[in-house]
Amino acid sequence: MAARRLVPLLDRVLVQRIEPPTKSIGGVLLPESTQSKLNEGVVISVGPGRRDKEGSLLPMGVKVDDKVMLPQYGGNEVTLGDEDYVLFRDEDILGVLADK
Amino acid sequence: MAARRLVPLLDRVLVQRIEPPTKSIGGVLLPESTQSKLNEGVVISVGPGRRDKEGSLLPMGVKVDDKVMLPQYGGNEVTLGDEDYVLFRDEDILGVLADK
Amino acid sequence: MAARRLVPLLDRVLVQRIEPPTKSIGGVLLPESTQSKLNEGVVISVGPGRRDKEGSLLPMGVKVDDKVMLPQYGGNEVTLGDEDYVLFRDEDILGVLADK
Amino acid sequence: MAARRLVPLLDRVLVQRIEPPTKSIGGVLLPESTQSKLNEGVVISVGPGRRDKEGSLLPMGVKVDDKVMLPQYGGNEVTLGDEDYVLFRDEDILGVLADK
Amino acid sequence: MAARRLVPLLDRVLVQRIEPPTKSIGGVLLPESTQSKLNEGVVISVGPGRRDKEGSLLPMGVKVDDKVMLPQYGGNEVTLGDEDYVLFRDEDILGVLADK
Amino acid sequence: MAARRLVPLLDRVLVQRIEPPTKSIGGVLLPESTQSKLNEGVVISVGPGRRDKEGSLLPMGVKVDDKVMLPQYGGNEVTLGDEDYVLFRDEDILGVLADK
Amino acid sequence: MAARRLVPLLDRVLVQRIEPPTKSIGGVLLPESTQSKLNEGVVISVGPGRRDKEGSLLPMGVKVDDKVMLPQYGGNEVTLGDEDYVLFRDEDILGVLADK
Repeated sequence: MAARRLVPLLDRVLVQRIEPPTKSIGGVLLPESTQSKLNEGVVISVGPGRRDKEGSLLPMGVKVDDKVMLPQYGGNEVTLGDEDYVLFRDEDILGVLADK
Repeated sequence: MAARRLVPLLDRVLVQRIEPPTKSIGGVLLPESTQSKLNEGVVISVGPGRRDKEGSLLPMGVKVDDKVMLPQYGGNEVTLGDEDYVLFRDEDILGVLADK
Repeated sequence: MAARRLVPLLDRVLVQRIEPPTKSIGGVLLPESTQSKLNEGVVISVGPGRRDKEGSLLPMGVKVDDKVMLPQYGGNEVTLGDEDYVLFRDEDILGVLADK
Repeated sequence: MAARRLVPLLDRVLVQRIEPPTKSIGGVLLPESTQSKLNEGVVISVGPGRRDKEGSLLPMGVKVDDKVMLPQYGGNEVTLGDEDYVLFRDEDILGVLADK
Repeated sequence: MAARRLVPLLDRVLVQRIEPPTKSIGGVLLPESTQSKLNEGVVISVGPGRRDKEGSLLPMGVKVDDKVMLPQYGGNEVTLGDEDYVLFRDEDILGVLADK
Repeated sequence: MAARRLVPLLDRVLVQRIEPPTKSIGGVLLPESTQSKLNEGVVISVGPGRRDKEGSLLPMGVKVDDKVMLPQYGGNEVTLGDEDYVLFRDEDILGVLADK
Repeated sequence: MAARRLVPLLDRVLVQRIEPPTKSIGGVLLPESTQSKLNEGVVISVGPGRRDKEGSLLPMGVKVDDKVMLPQYGGNEVTLGDEDYVLFRDEDILGVLADK
């Protein structure tokens, strides 16, 4: 099946959720609290943004490859090929994750 | 029965859903996840758009023949002839699908 | 009973629903999907429109005798004489039907 | 009991519902559909209207003695003397009835 | 207990409901419909009004001692001394009552 | 436990409810209606106010030590030390109480 | 597991709740009312703020290390490493706590 591409409209952001690991790198089973990362994802593609009243594009808050924190509710689940994704409005994404 | 045409008003978009195939081209039954494409459709016709406060038409985000990703909820189901369609506001369409 | 006339206020549109035929012209009973035309109607009268902030009338999207597609929900059912009608706001009418 | 007068505030309209006749002029019992006129009324008094942002009064859509079509829901029921009335915002009145 | 005074804030209006008489002046028991006046009241005090975007006070629609018609729902019940009152926003008061 | 101070943000007002007396000064048990004063409070601290679109602070309607009438619903209950307080937006406070 | 950093978007504030002590410094079990401090937290990081219509950043009400009072409802729970946090919009934070 040929890979396909979804170009989000307006200020939408296509995100792929990061599956939380169930074992640590050393092989130890991780407690449930450590698995709560299902609300994290990677930005796959971003829309052009909404326009303000004068017609100028409002800048987006995230960019492709950003690791982002997602809200627990909302978003539109979509399937492309055999992968699951979720679309959020830019303003609903909670924050960007970075290594310290 | 004569074919009829629906001209959407304002920023509405007339979409025909794409029925997901239940068998692959080679004849193998596809798993259910591959069938989740019912939220995809083809744009049949588009309205002129809404007007801003100065009376100018706001540009539409999609055009006829675009393959689009639809939200799981919302839209107005309509029947023309013996075909089923769904009408969405332009801003509710999630994105445009393209082959990579 | 003397016929009466209803002049809609603001941007309201008075519509008479088109009863779907239950038999084809040739007399064959039509399947249920073909009868789903109950959301189609004919525009009987239209209001003058709403006014914008400067007091100018905003143009209406439909005119008398237009065949229109109605949303599945909403509208105000009214009876004039012994006929049933429904009133919709202009912006809630989905589209105008035309023969190709 | 002395008759009293209610002066509506803002864009409110005081309406008295028209009781549907249960018999025709000739004395024949009318079918129920003919009795559905309970959503019709006569305008008893009107408020001065709301003001726009510059402080000018916005014109009202109906005037005293207009026969009007009322929505099925909403409005504030009030009693003056031993008569029942209903108050609607001007923009909620569906239309004005006229003999053809 | 010393009498106290409540100065309403913004566009609030302090109203004391008029208890409907249960007997006519002549001593005859009144039917229930005549007792529906519990939605009438007397204005006890009024706030200064809300301010528009330029900071000017918007005029209030009612004044102290006005007899007013109240909506069936809403308002804030308060007790001052051993009397019950209700506070409404100015725009929620339906109308002013006057003897003809 | 050291006393602490809460500085409200925006147009919030920190209020301490006045417990209604259950006995009169003379020692007589008060009826329940006289105890309904639980919606009265004293203003402990006030926020700086919200800003309008030009960035100017909008004046607050109440000040520290004002005796105020509170709505029956809403507000945020907070505990400081071992005292209970409630935070309201300035515009939700019904009025200011004064001795006549 | 490497520590990670969450940079909040727009006017969001990342807060870590302060666990209420269950025993006083002297070792005495504290009554439940004294434990109601779960709505207090420390600001860990703040977003840049929202922009007004001209594109200027609106100033945030709180800053890193502020001790803040949180509303009882709302917010987005997130986990970073093995610590729990909560994200609030700046305008939903009730106030800033200070020692007298």
